[in-house]
Amino acid sequence: MEGWFETTARVRYQETDQMGVVYHSNYFVWFEMARTELIRSVGITYKEIEKTGLLLPVVDVSCNYKCPAKYDDELLIRVKISRYTGLRIEFIYEVICKASLDLLATGSTKHVFIDTNYKPKRLVNSVPDFHEKLLTLSKILK
Amino acid sequence: MEGWFETTARVRYQETDQMGVVYHSNYFVWFEMARTELIRSVGITYKEIEKTGLLLPVVDVSCNYKCPAKYDDELLIRVKISRYTGLRIEFIYEVICKASLDLLATGSTKHVFIDTNYKPKRLVNSVPDFHEKLLTLSKILK
Amino acid sequence: MEGWFETTARVRYQETDQMGVVYHSNYFVWFEMARTELIRSVGITYKEIEKTGLLLPVVDVSCNYKCPAKYDDELLIRVKISRYTGLRIEFIYEVICKASLDLLATGSTKHVFIDTNYKPKRLVNSVPDFHEKLLTLSKILK
Amino acid sequence: MEGWFETTARVRYQETDQMGVVYHSNYFVWFEMARTELIRSVGITYKEIEKTGLLLPVVDVSCNYKCPAKYDDELLIRVKISRYTGLRIEFIYEVICKASLDLLATGSTKHVFIDTNYKPKRLVNSVPDFHEKLLTLSKILK
Repeated sequence: MEGWFETTARVRYQETDQMGVVYHSNYFVWFEMARTELIRSVGITYKEIEKTGLLLPVVDVSCNYKCPAKYDDELLIRVKISRYTGLRIEFIYEVICKASLDLLATGSTKHVFIDTNYKPKRLVNSVPDFHEKLLTLSKILK
Repeated sequence: MEGWFETTARVRYQETDQMGVVYHSNYFVWFEMARTELIRSVGITYKEIEKTGLLLPVVDVSCNYKCPAKYDDELLIRVKISRYTGLRIEFIYEVICKASLDLLATGSTKHVFIDTNYKPKRLVNSVPDFHEKLLTLSKILK
Repeated sequence: MEGWFETTARVRYQETDQMGVVYHSNYFVWFEMARTELIRSVGITYKEIEKTGLLLPVVDVSCNYKCPAKYDDELLIRVKISRYTGLRIEFIYEVICKASLDLLATGSTKHVFIDTNYKPKRLVNSVPDFHEKLLTLSKILK
Repeated sequence: MEGWFETTARVRYQETDQMGVVYHSNYFVWFEMARTELIRSVGITYKEIEKTGLLLPVVDVSCNYKCPAKYDDELLIRVKISRYTGLRIEFIYEVICKASLDLLATGSTKHVFIDTNYKPKRLVNSVPDFHEKLLTLSKILK
């Protein structure tokens, strides 16, 4: 479990579909929750980042589903920074069933820091403090 | 069917839950689609209204579920303006299964026109043209 | 706060819309979470109830929105049983911003116990233990 | 546009987030709509397939976001079978803005046919007619 930041969630009824398991797109919502908490863990919130006029849209995602998450399951959602360039940041994820410790899914998301005009924006110039923290985090977690 | 404006939608797999029917909160998304198309039918789009700095948040909703909508069902979603005061607007809705013509649900939503500072805003002062159209529509549909 | 059962949730980015606040239908997902935890608090899970072949679909809902929930807000979601007849159960809800203690919304949901053939089913006959607990709970919480 | 099957959708308000664009996980819901309509176009519905006891869960997905979809945009969603083995099927997708013809996103989903016990199931044995149609479709569309 070394190198991973971990958060938890419980599967909501609304997240299931008529196959009796979680609908696949919801895993990306959990990934978002995990990276939000990872950022919070270094003392900054994504909410505050957006208030500085910086956005971090998703430019690429993937998910591989191994075993279905089910209603009311407690999940561990693990996240790690796999790449950070000051402009681009990439996260990888694991979703684990807390009761069985089964690995349910793995995934990745890629992001670019942009300003409100959708122009790429290097973090070191706009929020240097956060840049330093992400840099440290990307080294610790590797 | 007199007085109703009608739009259609097909139930998405994502909208179902493990009970094998549509999860109840999705009906409010369909209501939103119906009132959006009702507004479009008078030659204005809600998108344009928002660009003038006017918002129309939901302040109250209700829904009564009679018969469950199911995956892949084609739906008729009917909407009618039940009240329009220039500041407040209320819609009522019916969701009907296109194949069986069964009434699946009825509902209502209430809204207030506000500006981007969340102050109530009379439509006649800000978008008089749209006010006139809604006034006409609220009479026609009754 | 007497009589309320309380659970918490943090607003997800996915729950916001372009008005910059939570999209209104998501409150019903939070209501579901609250009643799920209320049921869990008496030692039964809704998951187990469904496994006995009993379902508890929503037949009527309402919500009144007072103040918008925003991204990353921590919420208190309060729930109370307002009516329980053995066949029908009604819940009322409050959504409160944890930081400001502002009341954001109030709501209600009504449900009927049915079997998998969608026939109404009295709880006392099918899961008497759970019936007793709900009966006690409906008295305690009033 | 050769080889693609095309369907349309209009962006719902609920699909937007506070960045003012569509939340990224919704593209997978559109992908599902497109492959549902592709299957319908050969005279079978995914609904009927599920009724035969066959499921087609998603085992892998990816999406690359080029340009954000916005509220009320009319979208073209294109889908093509990129691989079909009788047991596994893979689709690729494009999301295009109908007004500008801008390519907004590309993506892929991989699926396995299974029975209700989650055992892999070759389509040729269980629904031979549908197998033939998919085989033809996978050749036509390439």
